[in-house]
Amino acid sequence: MKLNQNFEKLQESYLFLNIAQKVSAYQQAHPAGHIIRMGIGDVTRPLAPAVIEAMHKATDEMAHQETFQGYPPAEGQIFLREKIQSYYADRGVTLALSEIIIGDGAKREVGNIVDLFDADNEVLIPDPVYPVYVDTNLMSGRPIRYLPATEQDGFLPLPDGDTKGDIIYLCSPNNPTGAVYDRQGLQAWVNFALEQDAVILFDAAYESFISEEKLPRSIFEIPGADRCAIEFCSFSKTAGFTGMRCGYTVISNRLQIGGVRVNQLWARRQSTKFNGVSYITQRAAEAVFTVEGRRQIKETINYYRDNAKLMADSFRDMGIRFTGGENSPYIWHRCPDGMSSWDYFDYLLENAEVVGTPGSGFGQNGEGYFRLTAFGNKEKTAEAMERIRKLLK
Amino acid sequence: MKLNQNFEKLQESYLFLNIAQKVSAYQQAHPAGHIIRMGIGDVTRPLAPAVIEAMHKATDEMAHQETFQGYPPAEGQIFLREKIQSYYADRGVTLALSEIIIGDGAKREVGNIVDLFDADNEVLIPDPVYPVYVDTNLMSGRPIRYLPATEQDGFLPLPDGDTKGDIIYLCSPNNPTGAVYDRQGLQAWVNFALEQDAVILFDAAYESFISEEKLPRSIFEIPGADRCAIEFCSFSKTAGFTGMRCGYTVISNRLQIGGVRVNQLWARRQSTKFNGVSYITQRAAEAVFTVEGRRQIKETINYYRDNAKLMADSFRDMGIRFTGGENSPYIWHRCPDGMSSWDYFDYLLENAEVVGTPGSGFGQNGEGYFRLTAFGNKEKTAEAMERIRKLLK
Repeated sequence: MKLNQNFEKLQESYLFLNIAQKVSAYQQAHPAGHIIRMGIGDVTRPLAPAVIEAMHKATDEMAHQETFQGYPPAEGQIFLREKIQSYYADRGVTLALSEIIIGDGAKREVGNIVDLFDADNEVLIPDPVYPVYVDTNLMSGRPIRYLPATEQDGFLPLPDGDTKGDIIYLCSPNNPTGAVYDRQGLQAWVNFALEQDAVILFDAAYESFISEEKLPRSIFEIPGADRCAIEFCSFSKTAGFTGMRCGYTVISNRLQIGGVRVNQLWARRQSTKFNGVSYITQRAAEAVFTVEGRRQIKETINYYRDNAKLMADSFRDMGIRFTGGENSPYIWHRCPDGMSSWDYFDYLLENAEVVGTPGSGFGQNGEGYFRLTAFGNKEKTAEAMERIRKLLK
Repeated sequence: MKLNQNFEKLQESYLFLNIAQKVSAYQQAHPAGHIIRMGIGDVTRPLAPAVIEAMHKATDEMAHQETFQGYPPAEGQIFLREKIQSYYADRGVTLALSEIIIGDGAKREVGNIVDLFDADNEVLIPDPVYPVYVDTNLMSGRPIRYLPATEQDGFLPLPDGDTKGDIIYLCSPNNPTGAVYDRQGLQAWVNFALEQDAVILFDAAYESFISEEKLPRSIFEIPGADRCAIEFCSFSKTAGFTGMRCGYTVISNRLQIGGVRVNQLWARRQSTKFNGVSYITQRAAEAVFTVEGRRQIKETINYYRDNAKLMADSFRDMGIRFTGGENSPYIWHRCPDGMSSWDYFDYLLENAEVVGTPGSGFGQNGEGYFRLTAFGNKEKTAEAMERIRKLLK
């Protein structure tokens, strides 16, 4: 019996676990402290009333023989997939129901999708980026090539003559940098993928934070993407579902590799290793798309957007360069005085009791940067910015 | 870009998908028919009132800022893990909280666990058995050795001098045969695994159907199992959670391979590829362990047990040999007149409008056998047995 040796390539523990341990140690040493958490990208506002109502109703259905629901369909409930179909149609993207598959969150789906690909494929991953892309490929033994994202390119790297890769990860609005590709940028990647016979794994988890009409919220707004891209989306940031677990994957019927329809392969994987998403959760997600639901989640997103604006304004005032803050819940900035990311983490924790995320946790090019999130309480966000302003003055 | 070639080794589609398609075709041809479904092992009774109450309460918590819950811990909520700890303690099994990890169902966890093991390990899988064990290992390219389970050994094969394997799947009470290992049988497997440095993946999804006190409900009741076994359990059959998605995995701190604690490796995998189970679902699962909850789920299990007894009595009357029906929700019997499993499936569907599961779908040794489940409605179960009796008379 041998363990999967690929696990040895992983860093000792997961970024957010490290942060949690550091924060917990600080708290034990300073029980009277008032820590403000702007680290992990978890939401804090309650679920929308329309969602709550749908959950109570679904719960009552589970209480009666006639309306009880057993195993959900592995690909998701039709009622929810139809709503997502309309959501895309509103943006001019036409999808068949077979192209929309419900899952329990973008993190899991973006991790599981690699099951479909041979271990020999070379993976192209921007650096810095959400660590799950790297770790899931390390675990399954795929060679990784890093694509540097830097301040010079606005953290939005584009393919050039030297770019290579069979599987390309793109995340826009980006986690951690908050940078958002425009149509031209995504078109360049789609063209590259089509030319190179590569697949783009497009993480759109933060799409609902895009407020500028001209920016694409789905890669399927880009011509040709249906033949080379898979999109991952989540209700976590759109509707505060981090504690609910629901997302979806879009794979066009036109995405075929070696004559195999990739969404059929995904359906085969899901029917074997998945038993669908809880009925109540899917009813809750459906409610997000009602008139009331849409209005209510927009209020919440605007609440977080106001936080992001307040943070962006503060950084601008302080003369600190950053990306994000607009069209994104993240503010990504250089650590002051040339501090390393973890040094700045400790400095902020110990002197301002503000918790952020060290940029180096997102890759080598993140070293010297820092991520703060706008998902907190308004008053606390203002207080945190005040503390940072005083500290860095 | 190459797809994972291992998918080509899988059969075209999943057993239950085939059944669903056949049933659907029959229904279209006979719209006035009254099909009774005893095929897929899905439950039909509503959730326990204590569970429903907990879900309403948890939903209300999600509606308010102060009690809102974001990302759940990847390893599960402490409140639920403590309840499971007590549940095991009641049977004399002492577990640390770190040994209990919450997941969203046994199917998924038993499929995902293979991520931890090298692709070179040889897998030993009883035949017939739950198809997920085979398919998940085919997908990840592990060599499989089948262990024949036959009527002669009561469908409870034991290791002998020729038995080999690094990863051994055991399911007791068994799906599909309903057979249950006694202590001696499980001890033989534990001894084998310890001698051979193998790991047992023990699927205990049906443990709550065991009514005989002397039969083990957990492999951890067997001395030495903590050093060689991983147990998968589910709320699906215990508390009717098929539509809820919750289960748990037990890995002892004493299970180490090459100096690595397997539950730490599992935690590392989960923190990367999983974001925990919905808060509401975990509160629902917690309610299963309250005094009221326990009483209520016992009533439901007894309802299904009564169905199983009725089915077993009918088969006995008809002189048809079977396993299961006691300590199990499944009745596994030989097809009459030497019919093949799929022929008998069609024969029953067309002449009695009863849907079961062809034994051959569970492996080569299942050919000529058939599985019926006791998870249906009492009146319909009686009606189905009456129809079968008339047909086979």
